[in-house]
Amino acid sequence: MHPNRIEIQSFFENLQDQICEALEVEDGVGKFEEDLWQRPGGGGGRTRIIQGRIIEKGGVNFSAVSGALPENIAKALQLEQDSDFFASGVSIVLHPFNPHVPIIHMNVRYFEITKPDTDEVTTWWFGGGIDLTPHYVIREEAAFFHQELKKVCDQSHEDFYPKFKKWADDYFFLKHRNETRGVGGIFFDRLNESSGLSKAELFQFVKNTGEAFAPIYRHFMKNKHHLPYTDVEKNWQYHRRGRYVEFNLVWDRGTKFGLDTNGRTESILMSLPPTAKWTYEFQVEENSPEAYTLQHLKKGIDW
Amino acid sequence: MHPNRIEIQSFFENLQDQICEALEVEDGVGKFEEDLWQRPGGGGGRTRIIQGRIIEKGGVNFSAVSGALPENIAKALQLEQDSDFFASGVSIVLHPFNPHVPIIHMNVRYFEITKPDTDEVTTWWFGGGIDLTPHYVIREEAAFFHQELKKVCDQSHEDFYPKFKKWADDYFFLKHRNETRGVGGIFFDRLNESSGLSKAELFQFVKNTGEAFAPIYRHFMKNKHHLPYTDVEKNWQYHRRGRYVEFNLVWDRGTKFGLDTNGRTESILMSLPPTAKWTYEFQVEENSPEAYTLQHLKKGIDW
Repeated sequence: MHPNRIEIQSFFENLQDQICEALEVEDGVGKFEEDLWQRPGGGGGRTRIIQGRIIEKGGVNFSAVSGALPENIAKALQLEQDSDFFASGVSIVLHPFNPHVPIIHMNVRYFEITKPDTDEVTTWWFGGGIDLTPHYVIREEAAFFHQELKKVCDQSHEDFYPKFKKWADDYFFLKHRNETRGVGGIFFDRLNESSGLSKAELFQFVKNTGEAFAPIYRHFMKNKHHLPYTDVEKNWQYHRRGRYVEFNLVWDRGTKFGLDTNGRTESILMSLPPTAKWTYEFQVEENSPEAYTLQHLKKGIDW
Repeated sequence: MHPNRIEIQSFFENLQDQICEALEVEDGVGKFEEDLWQRPGGGGGRTRIIQGRIIEKGGVNFSAVSGALPENIAKALQLEQDSDFFASGVSIVLHPFNPHVPIIHMNVRYFEITKPDTDEVTTWWFGGGIDLTPHYVIREEAAFFHQELKKVCDQSHEDFYPKFKKWADDYFFLKHRNETRGVGGIFFDRLNESSGLSKAELFQFVKNTGEAFAPIYRHFMKNKHHLPYTDVEKNWQYHRRGRYVEFNLVWDRGTKFGLDTNGRTESILMSLPPTAKWTYEFQVEENSPEAYTLQHLKKGIDW
């Protein structure tokens, strides 16, 4: 059945290269440093970290892991035990210096289960998403971001954007703060032939999603990184990063899953910001851009 | 059955007062600010926050909540549903400015279940602990801390210190880092008559634990806050605080429980540090005090 894992893995490897190159060009100074790692049970990855001029701390990770399906993963995913698994993907989080440049996250991934010692794929799916976390919400920028994602989705299926937009609103949500992580984006999981699309068509959708990332983020880097900012704005950024930490450590299923299953901690937690702050009962000025931002960290906004 | 919830709650309220006063005296500048809050289902609390001269950010919380036992709590604690509950305690986390002063945490609490609309207590227990998280481990200081806790434990039962010391090592552990949060201390939970001690005797133990807190921490404040420190040491402190965030948000059952059950978020997350940093693959110098610290973040050290 095509595409097979080799083609998919190969796409993800190239995607990592292509995104790293694009980000280096736009940053102008930072260069990615690479750590290769191997998973004791099979497979491994390439963790790439940048500390640049526009991006203060960013990670672009590729991994392809395989082997006997660990028992706890089989349980968590409600899959038959005594299977072999293969999982590959690219995962990105970028924290910029300038509070007027948003934080961005992307993940695209493929997962499959085979009968032990055979090539027979019994279960497979794609998953992923892109979401934007502006320190300062600006309606036009959020609208630009969502329009770009909608274009990608509409190429594959007219239901995808509304469905995956809602899924992102629900997923990137800090229940304990009753606030979304940012302005959302798209999120999808366990996407397979039950969607009505073939495996090849879904792979194309994942390709389109992955390839949309670099141009979208370069837009924000290019147009925002030179904006001046005040101490108040920098301090606000540190506090928004604190919320980002809260989401990733308390609610993000990927992080939790990685830490629970002895994933490579430094690769998983590359998503955490360089500096974050917490102040008890942090207050914002009425009618300020900070207050505007808080008012727009809600589900269901039609940007 | 004595002591009853009224006596216990009253002790916790006084303990909060007494500790806040002692910390204000030692800090010399900071004054606690208080927020009173009520729980929609019954009860409430007094959150007190200090930003001082020695303590950069600290919280000393009292709460006493009661009402119908929420279904998710009944499940989590494996208790009969259709019960009423009462829970009261004091919870403290202090983050000092100076990296030579350790972070400290204490919690003492009482929990009981009654048959609906009666005073008949069907289940009760005490829980709590004190643990120390030095940014720089110093063997003599860790030994002092453990000796003080051992004195408290030995007054009640000779098995308590070894048992609760091990429990703290196991509990205050970052599995994903394979490192303890600090030099441990004591931790205990579901302590009731099955311990061999009466309720009155266990209450006395909890009293002794709570009352040991202020003198112990004043020792560290007094002796360490004036020590000079370098940028390297301050930066190390920020990274150790990052680990503290990781423990609290990923592994701490109290935090998780609070956030899952719609607890008061600002009171729960007062435990987070004012500023924390994360650096990918943060490295320390060989044979440095930082390396010494990492080598001593292990379970089972007999201080």
